Amino acid sequence: MSARYLLPYAPEDIGGLPADLDVIVWDGDGPQPPAQELQGVEFFCLPYMRHGAALPLLPSLPSLKIVQTLTAGMDDVLPHIPPGVTACNARGLHDASTAELAVTLILASLRGIPYFSRLQAEGRWSQEFHDSLADRRVLILGYGSIGQALAARLLPFECEVVPLARRARPGEGVHAVTELPALLPTADVVVLLTPLTPETRHLVDAGFLARMKDGALLVNVARGPVVDTEALLKELSAGRLRAALDVTDPEPLPAGHPLWHAPGTLITPHVGGPSSAFLPRAKRLLRGQILRYERGEEPANRI
Amino acid sequence: MSARYLLPYAPEDIGGLPADLDVIVWDGDGPQPPAQELQGVEFFCLPYMRHGAALPLLPSLPSLKIVQTLTAGMDDVLPHIPPGVTACNARGLHDASTAELAVTLILASLRGIPYFSRLQAEGRWSQEFHDSLADRRVLILGYGSIGQALAARLLPFECEVVPLARRARPGEGVHAVTELPALLPTADVVVLLTPLTPETRHLVDAGFLARMKDGALLVNVARGPVVDTEALLKELSAGRLRAALDVTDPEPLPAGHPLWHAPGTLITPHVGGPSSAFLPRAKRLLRGQILRYERGEEPANRI
Repeated sequence: MSARYLLPYAPEDIGGLPADLDVIVWDGDGPQPPAQELQGVEFFCLPYMRHGAALPLLPSLPSLKIVQTLTAGMDDVLPHIPPGVTACNARGLHDASTAELAVTLILASLRGIPYFSRLQAEGRWSQEFHDSLADRRVLILGYGSIGQALAARLLPFECEVVPLARRARPGEGVHAVTELPALLPTADVVVLLTPLTPETRHLVDAGFLARMKDGALLVNVARGPVVDTEALLKELSAGRLRAALDVTDPEPLPAGHPLWHAPGTLITPHVGGPSSAFLPRAKRLLRGQILRYERGEEPANRI
Repeated sequence: MSARYLLPYAPEDIGGLPADLDVIVWDGDGPQPPAQELQGVEFFCLPYMRHGAALPLLPSLPSLKIVQTLTAGMDDVLPHIPPGVTACNARGLHDASTAELAVTLILASLRGIPYFSRLQAEGRWSQEFHDSLADRRVLILGYGSIGQALAARLLPFECEVVPLARRARPGEGVHAVTELPALLPTADVVVLLTPLTPETRHLVDAGFLARMKDGALLVNVARGPVVDTEALLKELSAGRLRAALDVTDPEPLPAGHPLWHAPGTLITPHVGGPSSAFLPRAKRLLRGQILRYERGEEPANRI
């Protein structure tokens, strides 16, 4: 008999797993599994977008060895991990979907899709020049796996990609974050892809924004609190900067919040991850982690 | 003294030209140059997006040798070219901008940007799954320079690109258009990039659309009449297909036309070319053509 797993998908849906795997399936919707069944759970994969329902279960899992998330960011999970339990994130899982959304937000903003959607609703044809991504300089702040996936997607667009990470990696053309003040005024587009940590909270404050060039586009596909919302609102209301935000602070953005109607701003409701790219990649990640655990190997993506 | 040129930009704006070039500058706006000045014009570059004003000038240019357009498509120009005059298009000029808009339309449609823009206008946060470009099969119909630029931009998105041209080019993975009926039902996205000719007019008719799979996305960045608008409207109204159209038939799309409000449809007002990518590339093309003409060489992009 295998170790016991608490998973959001049935093993036959994940595929490629041993037939006798001991699995409790719980997708975070509906009632929690009975406490008795949870006793032996060693491996818990938190259901995607259901952390609110899943995290309270952690103290009821006395045999827990591994918590696996299906998110890349762990900021909301780490404080709940019991001592001695290994936490693994979904590094790589969201690369395709999130990098793709970042390109979508950049292109839609520059080429005027929200504007043309409004014209369409009014039945108005008005041919105008908009910015292209071609010839623009794009700064990527945070150059992990999603940042690299984003760079790969941007490069064929005849734009210049300038990646920054905590430490410079000269061989890969990656600048150190200490060069940020000098680089910010040169960028047409700044994409945020840093994890949320005490160091990155409000990294994008009034001083950061003031260094961005007039008309530049700030894209946040990281976490809302990386940006000081009040400071950003000032620049947007003045019409000096533009923004495309998949994450906000507060989040969800409440009805009536001024960010909803800030000029030059495109908001999507944290959909970097949730796309049709998710499920096949989530199952692939989970299959690998389970097979490693069954063979007594180290899990991947250990935090 | 050089040959006489009628150009939409001043030679000092184009740059890199001989100082003594004989140029009349006319951007298609404002009054036509005096007939006397036009006598000696040998090279006429039609002002971009001003063909309506420029084409009537052609019969008043007795010395005309070369008509240069700043568009890739020549369908509206060719019938007006006087006998013995060489017509040159802007092959290559719009590759970056138009391929970029095609990717913009695909990504915005699949990832739900027009939908999320509407939610934003209502101040509503609603996290939902949408399609990704990753894992989709994209058929490119018409594989000239813009089609190849599009393929280069699509490939890093983990999608499959299937190009079709008049003749198969097996070495480049290009299928013949005769394979279209077999390939259409396999595509998630179909991008039109064919020139408008008698053969391609209404190429996308009821039969073409019927072969497309449920929920597939038709992207037209070619010319409006390549699509039978009535046939497309039927599929869109039924909710069976989606569309992203930068060109329409009729064009401009008049107020009140049912296409404006067809479900699952994103319309932009023929802005594949007009973007900030245009001007530097237009000047580069023009500089090359003028220098070739001055040296008595064959022009590029001869039709």
